[in-house]
Amino acid sequence: MTAQVVASLRSDARDNRLRVLAVARAAFAADGLDVPIREIARRAEVGVATVYRHFRSKEALLTEAFAEQMASCSAIVREGLAAADPWSGFCLVVEGLMEVHALDRGFARAFTSRVDRAVDFVAERDRTLRQLFELVRRAKEAGSLRGDFVVEDISLALMANEGIRAESPAMRVAASRRFAALMIQSFQADPVPAALPPAVRLPLSRP
Amino acid sequence: MTAQVVASLRSDARDNRLRVLAVARAAFAADGLDVPIREIARRAEVGVATVYRHFRSKEALLTEAFAEQMASCSAIVREGLAAADPWSGFCLVVEGLMEVHALDRGFARAFTSRVDRAVDFVAERDRTLRQLFELVRRAKEAGSLRGDFVVEDISLALMANEGIRAESPAMRVAASRRFAALMIQSFQADPVPAALPPAVRLPLSRP
Repeated sequence: MTAQVVASLRSDARDNRLRVLAVARAAFAADGLDVPIREIARRAEVGVATVYRHFRSKEALLTEAFAEQMASCSAIVREGLAAADPWSGFCLVVEGLMEVHALDRGFARAFTSRVDRAVDFVAERDRTLRQLFELVRRAKEAGSLRGDFVVEDISLALMANEGIRAESPAMRVAASRRFAALMIQSFQADPVPAALPPAVRLPLSRP
Repeated sequence: MTAQVVASLRSDARDNRLRVLAVARAAFAADGLDVPIREIARRAEVGVATVYRHFRSKEALLTEAFAEQMASCSAIVREGLAAADPWSGFCLVVEGLMEVHALDRGFARAFTSRVDRAVDFVAERDRTLRQLFELVRRAKEAGSLRGDFVVEDISLALMANEGIRAESPAMRVAASRRFAALMIQSFQADPVPAALPPAVRLPLSRP
């Protein structure tokens, strides 16, 4: 084979890999994490063997499909934990996680699901969650976060965030920001009404 | 035909009608309101003509599929408007609507979507919405509801409510109750932290 043919084969393989990742993200978002590899292969128009050549298992595919979003989440929680004031750190985290989740429903679903066998994905998620628990502990200790808050309330807020629909991704993010501000208000121990991000025109509006 | 055969044909027709309604509700919930009549007929295992014999149009089917839920919503809003204290009435409405919506995602989607041509459905929804606007006006005037609240915030809360997943319908309703209480806290003009309904074990919990 000429060098050109080799390069072109490599480039095909790279294209396949990226296509499988994109298809997997869309499939997980639309149909949940149970979509089988063969269905992902079918939608990506490649053979099942090609998928396995790039990803040793469905778990590896899931982990790689959401590697970037998971890294963003970890960074957000680390930043929140590093904030001088735990309440500010907590607010940063709620806003940040909601923004990442608003842009990618597949990831939102993966992040809030039991994915027992995706070892690397779960390990990083759990590391991030442990930091989140620590931040919650500090924000409660500072008297800023309500005493009956539980970390599941973030899960509740993130799942709820998934339900928000709007006409465009930009409106989706704007609606999500207002929603995050409302949730933060509700989490505060001694709430002081703060200005909200502007309301977004949503499907159900003035008749 | 004997009377028995006629009765049995009538009973078949009734069964078909109920099956089409049940299939339509499930289809709208899973795949949105764009599911075509022929797909609903296929899933209900009846002919397209049978669907049209019972429902003159897709809009009529949608209206009938959600007639009961729509009646519940109207009743909830009327009750809220009749409450002596507009804030209590408002809270009743938020809790009530979320409970109806938590139990039926198809309806939640129909209620918060633009369904321009489903005339009867939209007429009743709009009547309910006008009463909701009046209740919101009164609750603001009483100084209980925050001034920057807009009715779209109820839409936001209802859509968000749709995103909540749990292991059983009972847990779904419990999670939804806690979520409603949090949203109500965030809508209050001078929030006084009130006890929340208990947290529910959700997919994302302590690592």
